[in-house]
Amino acid sequence: MRIEETSYEPCKRFLLEIAYDGTDYSGWQIQPHCLAVQEVLQEKLTKLYAGQKIHLIGSSRTDAGVHAQRFAASFLTPKRPDIPPEKVMRAINSQMPVGIKIRTIREVPLEFHARYDTLGKAYTYVLNLGAYSPFIDRYSWHPIHEIDPEKIRAAAQVLVGTHDYSSFVVERNMIDDAVRTIYRIDVDVIGQFCCVTFVGNGFLYKMIRCLMGTLEAAGSGKFSPEKVKEILEARDRSAAPETAPPNGLFLMKAFYTPEERDNFKLDGLPFTF
Amino acid sequence: MRIEETSYEPCKRFLLEIAYDGTDYSGWQIQPHCLAVQEVLQEKLTKLYAGQKIHLIGSSRTDAGVHAQRFAASFLTPKRPDIPPEKVMRAINSQMPVGIKIRTIREVPLEFHARYDTLGKAYTYVLNLGAYSPFIDRYSWHPIHEIDPEKIRAAAQVLVGTHDYSSFVVERNMIDDAVRTIYRIDVDVIGQFCCVTFVGNGFLYKMIRCLMGTLEAAGSGKFSPEKVKEILEARDRSAAPETAPPNGLFLMKAFYTPEERDNFKLDGLPFTF
Repeated sequence: MRIEETSYEPCKRFLLEIAYDGTDYSGWQIQPHCLAVQEVLQEKLTKLYAGQKIHLIGSSRTDAGVHAQRFAASFLTPKRPDIPPEKVMRAINSQMPVGIKIRTIREVPLEFHARYDTLGKAYTYVLNLGAYSPFIDRYSWHPIHEIDPEKIRAAAQVLVGTHDYSSFVVERNMIDDAVRTIYRIDVDVIGQFCCVTFVGNGFLYKMIRCLMGTLEAAGSGKFSPEKVKEILEARDRSAAPETAPPNGLFLMKAFYTPEERDNFKLDGLPFTF
Repeated sequence: MRIEETSYEPCKRFLLEIAYDGTDYSGWQIQPHCLAVQEVLQEKLTKLYAGQKIHLIGSSRTDAGVHAQRFAASFLTPKRPDIPPEKVMRAINSQMPVGIKIRTIREVPLEFHARYDTLGKAYTYVLNLGAYSPFIDRYSWHPIHEIDPEKIRAAAQVLVGTHDYSSFVVERNMIDDAVRTIYRIDVDVIGQFCCVTFVGNGFLYKMIRCLMGTLEAAGSGKFSPEKVKEILEARDRSAAPETAPPNGLFLMKAFYTPEERDNFKLDGLPFTF
Protein backbone atom coordinates (compact mmCIF):
# COMPACT_ATOMS: atom_id res chain seq x y z
CA MET A 1 0.00 0.00 0.00
CA ARG A 2 1.44 3.34 -1.07
CA ILE A 3 0.08 6.44 0.55
CA GLU A 4 1.47 9.95 0.77
CA GLU A 5 3.92 10.87 3.50
CA THR A 6 2.72 12.66 6.61
CA SER A 7 4.55 14.05 9.62
CA TYR A 8 2.25 11.91 11.82
CA GLU A 9 1.18 8.27 11.75
CA PRO A 10 -1.87 8.18 9.44
CA CYS A 11 -5.04 6.74 10.94
CA LYS A 12 -7.95 7.19 8.52
CA ARG A 13 -8.63 8.91 5.20
CA PHE A 14 -11.52 11.34 4.80
CA LEU A 15 -12.90 12.40 1.42
CA LEU A 16 -14.53 15.83 1.19
CA GLU A 17 -16.77 17.39 -1.43
CA ILE A 18 -16.20 21.14 -1.39
CA ALA A 19 -18.23 23.98 -2.90
CA TYR A 20 -16.52 27.27 -3.56
CA ASP A 21 -17.05 30.58 -5.26
CA GLY A 22 -13.84 30.93 -7.26
CA THR A 23 -14.13 34.69 -7.78
CA ASP A 24 -11.86 35.66 -4.93
CA TYR A 25 -9.42 32.72 -5.12
CA SER A 26 -6.55 31.78 -7.40
CA GLY A 27 -8.08 28.32 -7.95
CA TRP A 28 -7.78 25.12 -5.94
CA GLN A 29 -4.05 24.55 -5.93
CA ILE A 30 -1.58 26.39 -3.73
CA GLN A 31 0.59 28.86 -5.64
CA PRO A 32 2.98 31.58 -4.50
CA HIS A 33 1.62 35.13 -4.02
CA CYS A 34 -2.07 34.33 -4.15
CA LEU A 35 -4.76 32.70 -2.04
CA ALA A 36 -5.90 29.22 -3.08
CA VAL A 37 -8.87 27.28 -1.72
CA GLN A 38 -6.55 24.39 -0.77
CA GLU A 39 -4.52 26.72 1.44
CA VAL A 40 -7.57 28.07 3.30
CA LEU A 41 -8.84 24.55 4.00
CA GLN A 42 -5.47 23.06 4.96
CA GLU A 43 -4.89 25.86 7.45
CA LYS A 44 -8.24 25.24 9.17
CA LEU A 45 -7.70 21.47 9.21
CA THR A 46 -4.18 21.81 10.60
CA LYS A 47 -5.55 24.00 13.38
CA LEU A 48 -8.35 21.51 14.06
CA TYR A 49 -5.76 18.70 14.38
CA ALA A 50 -3.72 20.65 16.94
CA GLY A 51 -1.05 21.86 14.52
CA GLN A 52 -0.31 18.52 12.83
CA LYS A 53 0.21 19.56 9.20
CA ILE A 54 -2.72 18.30 7.09
CA HIS A 55 -2.23 17.99 3.34
CA LEU A 56 -5.17 17.75 0.93
CA ILE A 57 -5.02 15.85 -2.36
CA GLY A 58 -7.53 17.26 -4.83
CA SER A 59 -9.23 15.49 -7.72
CA SER A 60 -7.75 18.07 -10.11
CA ARG A 61 -6.81 21.71 -10.28
CA THR A 62 -9.23 24.47 -11.09
CA ASP A 63 -8.21 27.78 -12.69
CA ALA A 64 -8.49 31.13 -10.96
CA GLY A 65 -12.10 32.32 -11.06
CA VAL A 66 -13.60 28.89 -11.78
CA HIS A 67 -16.21 27.70 -9.27
CA ALA A 68 -16.89 24.27 -7.80
CA GLN A 69 -20.05 22.60 -6.59
CA ARG A 70 -18.47 19.29 -5.49
CA PHE A 71 -14.71 19.42 -5.77
CA ALA A 72 -13.28 16.24 -4.25
CA ALA A 73 -10.24 16.25 -1.94
CA SER A 74 -8.96 13.80 0.65
CA PHE A 75 -6.58 13.84 3.60
CA LEU A 76 -5.09 11.43 6.12
CA THR A 77 -6.10 11.97 9.72
CA PRO A 78 -3.67 11.65 12.63
CA LYS A 79 -4.45 9.19 15.45
CA ARG A 80 -5.15 11.99 17.93
CA PRO A 81 -7.45 13.85 18.12
CA ASP A 82 -9.83 11.24 16.68
CA ILE A 83 -12.69 13.38 15.36
CA PRO A 84 -15.74 11.79 13.66
CA PRO A 85 -16.11 12.98 10.03
CA GLU A 86 -19.39 14.90 10.58
CA LYS A 87 -17.74 16.79 13.43
CA VAL A 88 -14.78 17.69 11.21
CA MET A 89 -17.22 19.06 8.61
CA ARG A 90 -19.23 21.06 11.14
CA ALA A 91 -16.13 22.48 12.84
CA ILE A 92 -14.50 23.54 9.57
CA ASN A 93 -17.69 24.98 8.05
CA SER A 94 -18.36 27.05 11.15
CA GLN A 95 -15.10 28.94 10.66
CA MET A 96 -14.92 28.92 6.87
CA PRO A 97 -14.88 32.28 5.10
CA VAL A 98 -17.95 33.11 3.02
CA GLY A 99 -17.43 31.44 -0.34
CA ILE A 100 -16.13 28.00 0.70
CA LYS A 101 -18.12 25.15 2.19
CA ILE A 102 -17.65 21.42 2.73
CA ARG A 103 -20.81 19.75 1.38
CA THR A 104 -20.10 16.12 2.29
CA ILE A 105 -17.50 14.11 4.15
CA ARG A 106 -16.95 10.34 4.41
CA GLU A 107 -14.27 7.84 5.29
CA VAL A 108 -12.60 6.08 2.37
CA PRO A 109 -9.87 3.40 2.30
CA LEU A 110 -6.39 4.58 3.25
CA GLU A 111 -5.11 3.81 -0.26
CA PHE A 112 -7.82 5.85 -1.98
CA HIS A 113 -6.40 8.59 -4.24
CA ALA A 114 -8.58 11.59 -5.08
CA ARG A 115 -6.82 12.20 -8.39
CA TYR A 116 -5.81 8.74 -9.66
CA ASP A 117 -9.03 6.98 -8.67
CA THR A 118 -11.40 9.40 -10.39
CA LEU A 119 -13.44 7.91 -13.25
CA GLY A 120 -14.20 11.31 -14.64
CA LYS A 121 -15.75 14.67 -13.95
CA ALA A 122 -18.69 16.83 -14.87
CA TYR A 123 -18.36 20.53 -15.58
CA THR A 124 -21.15 22.98 -16.36
CA TYR A 125 -20.60 26.23 -18.22
CA VAL A 126 -23.32 28.89 -17.80
CA LEU A 127 -24.10 31.33 -20.62
CA ASN A 128 -26.37 34.27 -19.83
CA LEU A 129 -28.55 34.77 -22.92
CA GLY A 130 -30.65 37.57 -21.38
CA ALA A 131 -29.69 41.06 -20.26
CA TYR A 132 -26.43 41.59 -18.42
CA SER A 133 -27.07 41.60 -14.68
CA PRO A 134 -24.68 42.56 -11.88
CA PHE A 135 -25.91 39.63 -9.76
CA ILE A 136 -25.11 36.82 -12.16
CA ASP A 137 -21.98 38.26 -13.69
CA ARG A 138 -19.86 36.33 -11.17
CA TYR A 139 -21.43 33.07 -12.28
CA SER A 140 -22.01 33.32 -16.02
CA TRP A 141 -20.64 34.56 -19.31
CA HIS A 142 -22.71 37.13 -21.18
CA PRO A 143 -21.67 36.75 -24.83
CA ILE A 144 -21.95 39.78 -27.13
CA HIS A 145 -23.61 37.77 -29.94
CA GLU A 146 -27.09 36.34 -29.92
CA ILE A 147 -26.88 32.62 -29.13
CA ASP A 148 -29.13 29.80 -30.33
CA PRO A 149 -28.90 26.87 -27.86
CA GLU A 150 -29.96 24.46 -30.64
CA LYS A 151 -26.88 25.42 -32.61
CA ILE A 152 -24.69 24.77 -29.56
CA ARG A 153 -26.35 21.37 -29.12
CA ALA A 154 -25.69 20.41 -32.76
CA ALA A 155 -22.04 21.52 -32.67
CA ALA A 156 -21.43 19.85 -29.29
CA GLN A 157 -22.20 16.42 -30.71
CA VAL A 158 -19.14 16.70 -32.94
CA LEU A 159 -16.95 17.10 -29.84
CA VAL A 160 -18.30 14.02 -28.03
CA GLY A 161 -16.23 10.83 -28.16
CA THR A 162 -12.56 9.96 -27.87
CA HIS A 163 -10.45 12.56 -29.64
CA ASP A 164 -7.14 14.34 -29.62
CA TYR A 165 -8.26 17.70 -28.22
CA SER A 166 -5.04 19.59 -29.05
CA SER A 167 -7.09 22.40 -30.66
CA PHE A 168 -8.65 23.06 -27.26
CA VAL A 169 -5.61 23.02 -25.02
CA VAL A 170 -3.49 25.84 -23.65
CA GLU A 171 0.22 25.02 -23.21
CA ARG A 172 -0.01 21.89 -25.36
CA ASN A 173 3.76 21.43 -25.16
CA MET A 174 3.48 20.85 -21.41
CA ILE A 175 1.52 17.59 -21.83
CA ASP A 176 2.34 14.31 -23.55
CA ASP A 177 -1.05 13.42 -24.77
CA ALA A 178 -4.24 15.39 -25.52
CA VAL A 179 -6.46 12.37 -26.11
CA ARG A 180 -9.47 12.33 -23.80
CA THR A 181 -13.01 10.95 -23.86
CA ILE A 182 -16.08 13.15 -23.55
CA TYR A 183 -19.02 10.83 -22.81
CA ARG A 184 -21.67 13.47 -23.42
CA ILE A 185 -22.39 17.19 -23.63
CA ASP A 186 -25.86 18.22 -22.42
CA VAL A 187 -27.40 21.59 -23.24
CA ASP A 188 -30.09 22.75 -20.78
CA VAL A 189 -31.96 26.01 -21.14
CA ILE A 190 -33.10 27.27 -17.72
CA GLY A 191 -34.79 30.66 -17.82
CA GLN A 192 -32.45 33.08 -19.59
CA PHE A 193 -29.48 30.74 -19.14
CA CYS A 194 -27.97 28.11 -21.40
CA CYS A 195 -26.06 25.54 -19.34
CA VAL A 196 -23.59 23.33 -21.21
CA THR A 197 -22.62 20.26 -19.17
CA PHE A 198 -19.55 18.21 -20.10
CA VAL A 199 -19.11 14.69 -18.72
CA GLY A 200 -15.72 13.17 -19.53
CA ASN A 201 -12.95 10.94 -18.23
CA GLY A 202 -10.69 13.94 -17.73
CA PHE A 203 -10.14 17.43 -19.03
CA LEU A 204 -6.94 19.25 -19.90
CA TYR A 205 -5.80 22.68 -18.74
CA LYS A 206 -8.43 25.25 -19.83
CA MET A 207 -9.94 22.63 -22.18
CA ILE A 208 -13.58 23.34 -21.34
CA ARG A 209 -13.10 27.09 -21.62
CA CYS A 210 -11.47 26.53 -25.04
CA LEU A 211 -14.34 24.25 -26.10
CA MET A 212 -16.84 26.88 -24.93
CA GLY A 213 -15.13 29.58 -27.01
CA THR A 214 -15.81 27.41 -30.06
CA LEU A 215 -19.34 26.44 -28.98
CA GLU A 216 -20.19 30.12 -28.45
CA ALA A 217 -19.10 30.82 -32.03
CA ALA A 218 -21.24 27.88 -33.17
CA GLY A 219 -24.20 29.14 -31.13
CA SER A 220 -23.97 32.57 -32.73
CA GLY A 221 -24.08 30.99 -36.20
CA LYS A 222 -20.45 31.82 -37.02
CA PHE A 223 -19.36 28.14 -37.14
CA SER A 224 -21.33 25.20 -38.55
CA PRO A 225 -20.94 21.76 -36.94
CA GLU A 226 -18.74 20.87 -39.94
CA LYS A 227 -16.46 23.80 -39.17
CA VAL A 228 -16.25 22.67 -35.53
CA LYS A 229 -15.24 19.22 -36.77
CA GLU A 230 -12.50 20.83 -38.89
CA ILE A 231 -11.21 22.75 -35.87
CA LEU A 232 -11.15 19.56 -33.77
CA GLU A 233 -9.30 17.67 -36.50
CA ALA A 234 -6.75 20.45 -37.00
CA ARG A 235 -5.25 19.55 -33.57
CA ASP A 236 -3.97 23.09 -33.45
CA ARG A 237 -4.95 25.69 -30.82
CA SER A 238 -4.69 28.53 -33.35
CA ALA A 239 -7.54 27.00 -35.38
CA ALA A 240 -10.03 27.66 -32.57
CA PRO A 241 -11.39 30.95 -31.16
CA GLU A 242 -10.51 32.61 -27.85
CA THR A 243 -10.85 30.88 -24.49
CA ALA A 244 -14.14 31.61 -22.68
CA PRO A 245 -13.85 33.50 -19.36
CA PRO A 246 -13.52 31.46 -16.13
CA ASN A 247 -16.50 32.92 -14.24
CA GLY A 248 -19.10 30.88 -16.18
CA LEU A 249 -17.47 27.54 -15.30
CA PHE A 250 -18.42 25.18 -12.47
CA LEU A 251 -16.75 21.88 -11.62
CA MET A 252 -19.91 19.99 -10.73
CA LYS A 253 -18.64 16.61 -9.53
CA ALA A 254 -15.71 14.21 -9.51
CA PHE A 255 -16.85 10.62 -10.07
CA TYR A 256 -15.47 7.54 -8.29
CA THR A 257 -18.08 5.00 -9.45
CA PRO A 258 -19.51 4.33 -12.94
CA GLU A 259 -23.05 4.86 -11.57
CA GLU A 260 -22.27 8.38 -10.36
CA ARG A 261 -20.80 9.18 -13.75
CA ASP A 262 -23.56 7.65 -15.87
CA ASN A 263 -26.43 9.10 -13.85
CA PHE A 264 -25.13 12.64 -13.49
CA LYS A 265 -27.78 15.20 -14.45
CA LEU A 266 -27.78 18.96 -13.96
CA ASP A 267 -30.72 19.72 -11.70
CA GLY A 268 -30.82 23.51 -11.70
CA LEU A 269 -28.66 26.58 -12.23
CA PRO A 270 -25.29 25.79 -10.61
CA PHE A 271 -25.25 29.06 -8.66
CA THR A 272 -28.66 28.61 -7.01
CA PHE A 273 -27.87 25.59 -4.84
CA MET B 1 -40.94 75.41 -10.80
CA ARG B 2 -38.41 74.41 -8.15
CA ILE B 3 -35.52 72.23 -9.19
CA GLU B 4 -32.21 71.54 -7.49
CA GLU B 5 -29.27 73.86 -8.04
CA THR B 6 -26.59 72.98 -10.54
CA SER B 7 -23.32 74.62 -11.48
CA TYR B 8 -24.56 74.67 -15.11
CA GLU B 9 -27.80 75.69 -16.79
CA PRO B 10 -30.05 72.61 -16.64
CA CYS B 11 -31.37 71.36 -19.96
CA LYS B 12 -33.20 68.04 -19.45
CA ARG B 13 -33.82 65.54 -16.67
CA PHE B 14 -33.01 61.87 -17.10
CA LEU B 15 -34.42 59.15 -14.83
CA LEU B 16 -32.34 55.98 -14.41
CA GLU B 17 -33.19 52.56 -13.04
CA ILE B 18 -30.03 51.05 -11.58
CA ALA B 19 -29.24 47.46 -10.57
CA TYR B 20 -26.46 46.86 -8.08
CA ASP B 21 -24.93 44.15 -5.97
CA GLY B 22 -24.71 45.88 -2.59
CA THR B 23 -22.11 43.49 -1.12
CA ASP B 24 -19.14 45.68 -1.86
CA TYR B 25 -20.78 49.09 -1.34
CA SER B 26 -21.85 51.13 1.66
CA GLY B 27 -25.33 51.56 0.19
CA TRP B 28 -26.70 54.12 -2.27
CA GLN B 29 -25.99 57.37 -0.47
CA ILE B 30 -22.59 59.05 -0.30
CA GLN B 31 -20.98 58.86 3.14
CA PRO B 32 -17.51 59.66 4.39
CA HIS B 33 -14.85 56.89 4.40
CA CYS B 34 -16.72 54.35 2.27
CA LEU B 35 -17.72 53.76 -1.31
CA ALA B 36 -21.37 54.37 -2.22
CA VAL B 37 -23.10 53.48 -5.48
CA GLN B 38 -24.15 57.12 -5.91
CA GLU B 39 -20.50 58.20 -5.82
CA VAL B 40 -19.41 55.69 -8.47
CA LEU B 41 -22.21 56.76 -10.83
CA GLN B 42 -21.81 60.51 -10.27
CA GLU B 43 -18.11 60.28 -11.02
CA LYS B 44 -18.72 58.52 -14.34
CA LEU B 45 -21.51 60.95 -15.30
CA THR B 46 -19.40 63.99 -14.42
CA LYS B 47 -16.62 62.63 -16.63
CA LEU B 48 -19.09 61.97 -19.45
CA TYR B 49 -20.32 65.59 -19.21
CA ALA B 50 -16.80 66.99 -19.52
CA GLY B 51 -16.28 67.68 -15.82
CA GLN B 52 -19.60 69.47 -15.15
CA LYS B 53 -20.55 68.19 -11.69
CA ILE B 54 -23.57 65.86 -12.00
CA HIS B 55 -25.66 65.22 -8.90
CA LEU B 56 -28.04 62.27 -8.63
CA ILE B 57 -31.25 62.34 -6.58
CA GLY B 58 -32.23 58.84 -5.52
CA SER B 59 -35.71 57.50 -4.71
CA SER B 60 -34.46 56.56 -1.22
CA ARG B 61 -31.38 55.31 0.57
CA THR B 62 -30.40 51.68 0.81
CA ASP B 63 -28.33 50.25 3.66
CA ALA B 64 -24.86 48.82 3.22
CA GLY B 65 -25.09 45.32 1.77
CA VAL B 66 -28.64 45.70 0.44
CA HIS B 67 -29.06 45.05 -3.30
CA ALA B 68 -31.19 46.80 -5.91
CA GLN B 69 -32.86 45.58 -9.07
CA ARG B 70 -34.37 48.92 -10.16
CA PHE B 71 -33.24 51.72 -7.90
CA ALA B 72 -34.52 55.03 -9.35
CA ALA B 73 -32.35 58.15 -9.55
CA SER B 74 -32.49 61.27 -11.69
CA PHE B 75 -30.14 64.06 -12.74
CA LEU B 76 -30.26 67.29 -14.70
CA THR B 77 -28.22 67.36 -17.89
CA PRO B 78 -26.18 70.36 -19.00
CA LYS B 79 -26.88 71.97 -22.43
CA ARG B 80 -23.55 70.72 -23.82
CA PRO B 81 -22.70 68.00 -24.60
CA ASP B 82 -26.26 67.05 -25.57
CA ILE B 83 -26.17 63.22 -25.36
CA PRO B 84 -29.27 61.12 -26.16
CA PRO B 85 -30.36 59.04 -23.13
CA GLU B 86 -29.58 55.63 -24.67
CA LYS B 87 -26.06 56.84 -25.44
CA VAL B 88 -25.62 57.98 -21.83
CA MET B 89 -26.67 54.52 -20.64
CA ARG B 90 -24.38 52.71 -23.05
CA ALA B 91 -21.39 54.93 -22.30
CA ILE B 92 -21.79 54.63 -18.52
CA ASN B 93 -22.46 50.87 -18.56
CA SER B 94 -19.39 50.23 -20.69
CA GLN B 95 -17.14 51.64 -17.95
CA MET B 96 -19.11 50.58 -14.90
CA PRO B 97 -17.40 48.27 -12.41
CA VAL B 98 -18.82 44.75 -12.16
CA GLY B 99 -21.74 44.98 -9.76
CA ILE B 100 -23.49 48.15 -10.98
CA LYS B 101 -25.57 48.55 -14.12
CA ILE B 102 -28.07 51.05 -15.50
CA ARG B 103 -31.10 49.02 -16.62
CA THR B 104 -33.27 51.77 -18.14
CA ILE B 105 -33.05 55.49 -18.86
CA ARG B 106 -35.70 57.97 -19.99
CA GLU B 107 -36.37 61.69 -20.05
CA VAL B 108 -38.81 63.01 -17.43
CA PRO B 109 -40.11 66.56 -16.80
CA LEU B 110 -37.58 68.98 -15.31
CA GLU B 111 -39.65 69.31 -12.13
CA PHE B 112 -39.80 65.53 -11.56
CA HIS B 113 -38.40 64.49 -8.17
CA ALA B 114 -37.16 60.90 -7.70
CA ARG B 115 -37.88 60.94 -3.96
CA TYR B 116 -40.97 63.14 -3.51
CA ASP B 117 -42.83 61.84 -6.57
CA THR B 118 -42.59 58.16 -5.70
CA LEU B 119 -45.91 56.42 -5.00
CA GLY B 120 -44.19 53.57 -3.24
CA LYS B 121 -41.67 50.80 -3.54
CA ALA B 122 -41.37 47.06 -3.69
CA TYR B 123 -38.73 45.12 -1.76
CA THR B 124 -38.09 41.39 -1.84
CA TYR B 125 -36.33 39.52 0.95
CA VAL B 126 -34.86 36.11 0.03
CA LEU B 127 -34.68 33.30 2.60
CA ASN B 128 -32.66 30.22 1.72
CA LEU B 129 -34.57 27.24 3.14
CA GLY B 130 -32.21 24.63 1.69
CA ALA B 131 -28.58 23.90 2.43
CA TYR B 132 -26.17 26.76 2.88
CA SER B 133 -24.37 27.46 -0.39
CA PRO B 134 -21.38 29.72 -1.02
CA PHE B 135 -22.94 30.97 -4.26
CA ILE B 136 -26.19 32.35 -2.84
CA ASP B 137 -24.87 33.55 0.49
CA ARG B 138 -24.40 37.04 -0.96
CA TYR B 139 -28.05 37.16 -1.97
CA SER B 140 -30.02 35.38 0.72
CA TRP B 141 -30.35 34.76 4.44
CA HIS B 142 -29.98 31.18 5.61
CA PRO B 143 -31.89 31.02 8.93
CA ILE B 144 -30.85 28.48 11.56
CA HIS B 145 -34.43 27.34 12.25
CA GLU B 146 -36.64 25.36 9.92
CA ILE B 147 -39.08 27.73 8.22
CA ASP B 148 -42.64 27.06 7.06
CA PRO B 149 -43.55 29.57 4.31
CA GLU B 150 -47.27 29.13 5.15
CA LYS B 151 -46.60 30.42 8.65
CA ILE B 152 -44.80 33.45 7.21
CA ARG B 153 -47.76 34.09 4.90
CA ALA B 154 -50.24 33.95 7.78
CA ALA B 155 -48.19 36.27 10.01
CA ALA B 156 -47.51 38.69 7.16
CA GLN B 157 -51.21 39.45 6.74
CA VAL B 158 -51.23 41.00 10.22
CA LEU B 159 -48.59 43.50 9.09
CA VAL B 160 -50.45 44.63 5.95
CA GLY B 161 -52.41 47.91 6.13
CA THR B 162 -51.80 51.37 7.57
CA HIS B 163 -50.03 51.09 10.92
CA ASP B 164 -47.60 52.77 13.23
CA TYR B 165 -44.54 50.56 12.62
CA SER B 166 -42.51 51.83 15.59
CA SER B 167 -41.80 48.23 16.66
CA PHE B 168 -39.94 47.73 13.38
CA VAL B 169 -37.85 50.86 13.21
CA VAL B 170 -34.24 51.50 14.17
CA GLU B 171 -33.50 55.01 15.53
CA ARG B 172 -37.20 55.80 16.09
CA ASN B 173 -36.25 59.06 17.79
CA MET B 174 -34.82 60.35 14.49
CA ILE B 175 -38.23 60.38 12.76
CA ASP B 176 -41.48 62.20 13.53
CA ASP B 177 -43.88 59.59 12.38
CA ALA B 178 -43.69 55.82 11.91
CA VAL B 179 -47.08 55.46 10.20
CA ARG B 180 -46.82 53.84 6.80
CA THR B 181 -49.04 51.76 4.51
CA ILE B 182 -48.06 48.28 3.34
CA TYR B 183 -50.40 47.40 0.46
CA ARG B 184 -49.47 43.77 0.39
CA ILE B 185 -46.89 41.15 1.34
CA ASP B 186 -46.52 38.26 -1.12
CA VAL B 187 -44.79 35.01 -0.21
CA ASP B 188 -43.40 33.05 -3.19
CA VAL B 189 -41.60 29.75 -2.87
CA ILE B 190 -39.14 29.29 -5.76
CA GLY B 191 -37.06 26.14 -5.50
CA GLN B 192 -35.35 26.12 -2.10
CA PHE B 193 -36.03 29.84 -1.60
CA CYS B 194 -38.83 31.69 0.13
CA CYS B 195 -39.18 35.22 -1.30
CA VAL B 196 -41.14 37.73 0.77
CA THR B 197 -42.18 40.78 -1.28
CA PHE B 198 -43.34 43.97 0.42
CA VAL B 199 -45.24 46.63 -1.57
CA GLY B 200 -45.81 49.84 0.39
CA ASN B 201 -46.02 53.62 0.14
CA GLY B 202 -42.68 53.98 1.89
CA PHE B 203 -40.45 52.14 4.33
CA LEU B 204 -38.49 53.45 7.29
CA TYR B 205 -34.81 52.91 8.07
CA LYS B 206 -34.19 49.12 8.35
CA MET B 207 -37.96 48.56 8.57
CA ILE B 208 -38.08 45.58 6.20
CA ARG B 209 -35.14 43.90 7.87
CA CYS B 210 -36.90 44.40 11.25
CA LEU B 211 -40.14 42.99 9.81
CA MET B 212 -38.22 40.02 8.42
CA GLY B 213 -36.68 39.29 11.82
CA THR B 214 -40.22 38.91 13.15
CA LEU B 215 -41.50 36.97 10.12
CA GLU B 216 -38.59 34.54 10.44
CA ALA B 217 -39.60 33.90 14.04
CA ALA B 218 -43.20 33.40 12.85
CA GLY B 219 -42.02 31.05 10.09
CA SER B 220 -40.12 28.92 12.57
CA GLY B 221 -43.24 28.57 14.74
CA LYS B 222 -41.89 30.73 17.57
CA PHE B 223 -44.52 33.47 17.06
CA SER B 224 -48.21 33.01 16.18
CA PRO B 225 -49.94 35.65 14.01
CA GLU B 226 -51.56 36.91 17.24
CA LYS B 227 -48.12 37.39 18.81
CA VAL B 228 -47.00 39.31 15.69
CA LYS B 229 -50.08 41.55 16.09
CA GLU B 230 -49.09 42.17 19.72
CA ILE B 231 -45.58 43.14 18.66
CA LEU B 232 -46.95 45.54 16.03
CA GLU B 233 -49.34 47.12 18.54
CA ALA B 234 -46.61 47.51 21.17
CA ARG B 235 -45.03 50.25 19.01
CA ASP B 236 -41.77 49.44 20.71
CA ARG B 237 -38.63 48.14 18.97
CA SER B 238 -37.65 46.05 22.01
CA ALA B 239 -40.83 43.98 21.57
CA ALA B 240 -39.56 42.54 18.27
CA PRO B 241 -36.64 40.19 17.50
CA GLU B 242 -33.31 41.05 15.89
CA THR B 243 -32.98 42.77 12.53
CA ALA B 244 -32.46 40.37 9.59
CA PRO B 245 -29.11 40.66 7.74
CA PRO B 246 -28.90 43.02 4.73
CA ASN B 247 -27.67 40.50 2.14
CA GLY B 248 -31.12 38.91 1.62
CA LEU B 249 -32.78 42.23 0.73
CA PHE B 250 -33.42 43.62 -2.75
CA LEU B 251 -35.05 46.95 -3.59
CA MET B 252 -37.05 45.74 -6.57
CA LYS B 253 -38.68 48.90 -7.93
CA ALA B 254 -39.66 52.50 -7.15
CA PHE B 255 -43.15 53.31 -8.45
CA TYR B 256 -44.19 56.58 -10.09
CA THR B 257 -47.64 55.50 -11.39
CA PRO B 258 -50.46 53.61 -9.61
CA GLU B 259 -50.41 50.99 -12.41
CA GLU B 260 -46.75 50.14 -11.82
CA ARG B 261 -47.48 49.78 -8.12
CA ASP B 262 -50.67 47.74 -8.41
CA ASN B 263 -49.32 45.37 -11.07
CA PHE B 264 -45.94 44.63 -9.52
CA LYS B 265 -45.26 40.91 -9.35
CA LEU B 266 -42.04 39.07 -8.53
CA ASP B 267 -41.14 37.07 -11.63
CA GLY B 268 -38.18 34.99 -10.49
CA LEU B 269 -35.39 34.90 -7.94
CA PRO B 270 -34.10 38.49 -7.66
CA PHE B 271 -30.49 37.40 -8.14
CA THR B 272 -31.03 35.49 -11.38
CA PHE B 273 -32.00 38.41 -13.63
